[in-house]
Amino acid sequence: MSSHNFNPVSIIRKKRDGQCLSTDEISFMIEQYTRDEIPDYQMSAFIMAGFIRGFDDREAATLTDAMLNTGKVLDLSDIPGKKVDKHSTGGVGDKLSLILAPIVASWGVSVPMISGRGLGHTGGTLDKLESITGFMVDIPLDRYRNILKKTGVVMAGQTEEIAPADKRLYALRDVTATVESIPLIASSIMSKKLAEGIDALVLDVKFGSGAFMRDLGDAIELAETLVTIGEDFEKQTIAYLTDMNQPLGYAMGNWLEVKESIHALRGDGPADVMEITHTLAGTMIWLGEKASTINEGVEKSLEAVQNGQALEKWLELVEAQGGDTNLIHNPETYREAEFEFEFKATKDGYIQKIDAYQMGMGSLELGAGRRRKEEAVDPTAGIVLAKKRGEYVKENETIARGYTNKEAVIDSVLQTMDEAVSIEAERPEMNGLIQYRADKKGVHELKT
Amino acid sequence: MSSHNFNPVSIIRKKRDGQCLSTDEISFMIEQYTRDEIPDYQMSAFIMAGFIRGFDDREAATLTDAMLNTGKVLDLSDIPGKKVDKHSTGGVGDKLSLILAPIVASWGVSVPMISGRGLGHTGGTLDKLESITGFMVDIPLDRYRNILKKTGVVMAGQTEEIAPADKRLYALRDVTATVESIPLIASSIMSKKLAEGIDALVLDVKFGSGAFMRDLGDAIELAETLVTIGEDFEKQTIAYLTDMNQPLGYAMGNWLEVKESIHALRGDGPADVMEITHTLAGTMIWLGEKASTINEGVEKSLEAVQNGQALEKWLELVEAQGGDTNLIHNPETYREAEFEFEFKATKDGYIQKIDAYQMGMGSLELGAGRRRKEEAVDPTAGIVLAKKRGEYVKENETIARGYTNKEAVIDSVLQTMDEAVSIEAERPEMNGLIQYRADKKGVHELKT
Repeated sequence: MSSHNFNPVSIIRKKRDGQCLSTDEISFMIEQYTRDEIPDYQMSAFIMAGFIRGFDDREAATLTDAMLNTGKVLDLSDIPGKKVDKHSTGGVGDKLSLILAPIVASWGVSVPMISGRGLGHTGGTLDKLESITGFMVDIPLDRYRNILKKTGVVMAGQTEEIAPADKRLYALRDVTATVESIPLIASSIMSKKLAEGIDALVLDVKFGSGAFMRDLGDAIELAETLVTIGEDFEKQTIAYLTDMNQPLGYAMGNWLEVKESIHALRGDGPADVMEITHTLAGTMIWLGEKASTINEGVEKSLEAVQNGQALEKWLELVEAQGGDTNLIHNPETYREAEFEFEFKATKDGYIQKIDAYQMGMGSLELGAGRRRKEEAVDPTAGIVLAKKRGEYVKENETIARGYTNKEAVIDSVLQTMDEAVSIEAERPEMNGLIQYRADKKGVHELKT
Repeated sequence: MSSHNFNPVSIIRKKRDGQCLSTDEISFMIEQYTRDEIPDYQMSAFIMAGFIRGFDDREAATLTDAMLNTGKVLDLSDIPGKKVDKHSTGGVGDKLSLILAPIVASWGVSVPMISGRGLGHTGGTLDKLESITGFMVDIPLDRYRNILKKTGVVMAGQTEEIAPADKRLYALRDVTATVESIPLIASSIMSKKLAEGIDALVLDVKFGSGAFMRDLGDAIELAETLVTIGEDFEKQTIAYLTDMNQPLGYAMGNWLEVKESIHALRGDGPADVMEITHTLAGTMIWLGEKASTINEGVEKSLEAVQNGQALEKWLELVEAQGGDTNLIHNPETYREAEFEFEFKATKDGYIQKIDAYQMGMGSLELGAGRRRKEEAVDPTAGIVLAKKRGEYVKENETIARGYTNKEAVIDSVLQTMDEAVSIEAERPEMNGLIQYRADKKGVHELKT
């Protein structure tokens, strides 16, 4: 490629003036940045220009491709059958990956899943998995491939070999107020997912207080961009728009969520968690060609929980990645946080709101999350709700229980919870949990 | 100031979203950047956001003030009388400072002038001065002050003590495609000029092919912003919009322009050079309260050339700054470039165009200018026109002479000259040289 004839200043100027960039120009910027030939200060000016002027769908696909090509792209063609992954834009109490990956894999659809860590109010799949004693998420690519081949599912962290440009660019965006750009978010997500060597992808794009995109309109736009990029790479891509105004399920916090996932795989999962899980898993089973319709896929997902094959697959996965399967058999034997406290209703009434963002921040405060990437998390800390939105509570009835090893933060977290929860005499209107589906044909409203 | 409570990412985000910033927010960005507490990559994102979203007049004045305050502001109050400077936005063949500074100072108006070096097609006053053997432009502030006190005029380079933030920011803008922003250009100019401790300022804002602002509309907007900032700091500020489509005068190149300036001070200056010189100098004499109207100032400017007092002042200045005054008395004794060549008319006709940008680039190529800041210039190199726009030439008549020590570039420069010059049968329409004046009352078209 003749990229060395380009001049970064001219490319920045072009985007600054609102022009579209060619594939070669975008590739040049990303490649040279990865090689340290374009310094951070030029990249940040470029990204700010792109943030304000926008990148169209073709540019977003090119950005994705360029970032993808800075690292390895896994070739999983020697593994028989379809490889289908799921990605969530992140939420509070979102343990869905832990439940749906074994469900889908139990039907013979391979699930190569590269996940992230928690940051701010949102949790991360890797932190949850690591709360299982011995479970290793930082594994080399050859081991990753072997586990996938043997068990049909693998869950690991992003290695240095996967889309290194994305890693650097994300860190730069974080400190230059250029995070919330839909094409930049979409290309960041897709560059990592496409590097997995998948055939198809299901996306859980969340909206509401606990989501990255609070606004439904923005979330829909992101979903459309993600689907467009996926289809551009000839990967079937389906996105669901799901509500993240209250935490998903009851548990927030790493081990607490693993425990809830084990219950879910045993057939005892929270209604909201299972509704989204079965929809996403059913879609993945269909995309993996193990069901002829999404509905049939959803039925197979339910069946996999009922007949225990999903739990069996989960145990296989935990064992393959070095985790202590005794903890899965006997989750009650896990060590507990030193302090437990209750958050109680101050009056009778219906719970109008359990704000996901604030509960996520409360859980972080207790030790379950991190403010900065380098912080460690406490696997035992977190919050378990006793009630959900729309339920009736009596004064003094427990709404949530907190778990922590940091006694000093309890009062502040109780205050956060108090702000997160509101109780009114009227029963609140309940909205559908899964509101839209986006696929290559467009965005469809779903009846719930 | 409580600036330490600010967060650079929030301030970048605010500008990114098109909001106006407070004085404290802008000061925080500039101060912390100067202290290396804000890295280049955050500053470049901020500047790009400001480039696209704009800075209003109040923000531009605040930027100016913040940059000014990162360095020393000269206090010249112990020097009696008004201190008036002139600044040009830069052009080709623009030796006006060398002629008008002694004219104005010869009437007892102090002229503390901090100038720049040439870059690209534009020349710089410092390079011209340094072509005078011994002339020192990098002088410490105390010496600067003493020369001003003694001779009433001083011409020097920007020291590290003057607006250091501007210096760093300009270098960053240069590599991040954020140069051509009117509020950023205006605050950069004004932060340096206001640091000089002046009472009033005359600006020569150029438009046309050899100017920084090619478009007259942009140049007018820049002039208005400069005047607004100046008046905001309670310094009387007047800007003239002058044509820079063809080189000013006949000479381009450092010593060649000094020589033309000496002729001008002896009463033998080119018409275009003298028209602008007398207008600017007359305005400065009026601002310095040595004339009761601009017209009276212009008459005094003419008088200073006729009676020799300006040349006398020029000799005083050259001596005070270490220059060889023999060269001023006998400019023909200066060493000459090794190669001299002629550019001739290919047909009979009127000269329609002598493109200032291309002639400036040709002069640079011969050795008179620099592409990058660290390059040296050849004082003897350059171009001297034999004809100006609108003049009639016969085939083979000389239009320009080139001077260089680099024989290898001659053919390429002749080709550049050929592109710069066009000859037609029709006499071209001549536009006024000084088209507008901007002052605190607004922009006024000038009859010429």
